[in-house]
Amino acid sequence: MRSEYLLNDDKLCRRNIKLTIAYDGTGYHGFQRQNNALSVQEVLENKLASLFGHSLKMAGAGRTDSGVHAYGQVVNFYTTGVIPADRIARASRGLLPDDIVINDAEDVAPDFHARYSAKSKIYIYRIYPHSVADPFLRNYAWHVAQTLDVALIHKAAQHIVGTHDFSAFRAAGSAPINPVRTIFEASCTLNAGIIEFTFWGNGFLYHMVRNLVGTLVNVGRSRLTEEQFINILASRDRKNAGATAPPQGLYLKQVFY
Amino acid sequence: MRSEYLLNDDKLCRRNIKLTIAYDGTGYHGFQRQNNALSVQEVLENKLASLFGHSLKMAGAGRTDSGVHAYGQVVNFYTTGVIPADRIARASRGLLPDDIVINDAEDVAPDFHARYSAKSKIYIYRIYPHSVADPFLRNYAWHVAQTLDVALIHKAAQHIVGTHDFSAFRAAGSAPINPVRTIFEASCTLNAGIIEFTFWGNGFLYHMVRNLVGTLVNVGRSRLTEEQFINILASRDRKNAGATAPPQGLYLKQVFY
Repeated sequence: MRSEYLLNDDKLCRRNIKLTIAYDGTGYHGFQRQNNALSVQEVLENKLASLFGHSLKMAGAGRTDSGVHAYGQVVNFYTTGVIPADRIARASRGLLPDDIVINDAEDVAPDFHARYSAKSKIYIYRIYPHSVADPFLRNYAWHVAQTLDVALIHKAAQHIVGTHDFSAFRAAGSAPINPVRTIFEASCTLNAGIIEFTFWGNGFLYHMVRNLVGTLVNVGRSRLTEEQFINILASRDRKNAGATAPPQGLYLKQVFY
Repeated sequence: MRSEYLLNDDKLCRRNIKLTIAYDGTGYHGFQRQNNALSVQEVLENKLASLFGHSLKMAGAGRTDSGVHAYGQVVNFYTTGVIPADRIARASRGLLPDDIVINDAEDVAPDFHARYSAKSKIYIYRIYPHSVADPFLRNYAWHVAQTLDVALIHKAAQHIVGTHDFSAFRAAGSAPINPVRTIFEASCTLNAGIIEFTFWGNGFLYHMVRNLVGTLVNVGRSRLTEEQFINILASRDRKNAGATAPPQGLYLKQVFY
């Protein structure tokens, strides 16, 4: 058991609980707890403490930024609490605000860690391509006031499938971790007026999905050819890629273990 | 020209402008201007004044309550401004907040009045019937944690089609106006997990749609039979009908002239 997930008083916690959570990130400064700004993690840790009888310290599978959403964020935490796992979701409803919902709770092995045990993740990104903005989508999709060629975008996106150095799409100035990731699936489709990207990979660099979308949109606008997109990926240089797409179109959809 | 739509300084306004507006009502205390609470009307009147060169006084087709939305609210106002109608929507984008969007603007005859000239309106109402709430729908649908029989609801709703005294479904204590309205169409369908009611009528009493939905849901739960629903309508007594459905599921979809 990792020492950082022992309780403050070092009481031995035999239960490791995994929660699957959906949230609307509009009202939060991201998932991860931070000083002076409300995070999803802070709300979860504070509001659920009463269910378990002690303060909680959670680990999340993916840190979503301010305004980013989740259908299937996963967290785990250690507890001495005795509430059965199958009663946690229901019991949490009166404690959590309406924009955070626990969809599943289960007891897992002591060595399960929401982040380190994750094998792969799916992110989706939504764009509303229309000359006029839709007030109901302002927090849930990126409004692009132009027609985008979805077939061109989808074709270009196939070049990220496989194992690549994604340095060209990582946030400028990020920590020098290994920039190689494997993408299993990348797609772009148009349904009911909304463009939806799906990215399924073994991991993602900081801002990687938003930088990929910001660059692929330029392919859809014919500002960038498929070949130029390939060259940007190969260049491993962030300066060559497009702008970072805004946060409100991004959703952490699912985490696989 | 109605005197209440003359400007404050009684300058003669030759132009009467009709706007078609969509808004997310979540952040507003309804459409209608009021003291001490932010309304959609107040934002429109204040933010658009600079486009027309003087303060504006608008009339709205329907007063939507706090938290109620609109895809097609209609307003009109008189102005001495000279901006061409086809430039108003675009020019308004930098002035209005993201949750209010002008979709259409046109010059209309001096006797056009958004409310008094309306011939009929369509309201829709959305329910999310699922054991667990969806955080993304909390402001956009009524969460009912039970399965509802949509076919039963639709069948019962057909009894409101036609001309009826809707006193059973008007807000308790409302002003004693004529409670007879004609409903052209009433439907209830299930699509992609969302139940959607559509009500098309020549007019609606205060809270009528929300009271109809609150009562029809009881048919869908089998707490009320179709015959009991017919009897409630015939009783013209608000005490017999169900609770008022919450505001966030209601949308003013379209106004016909």
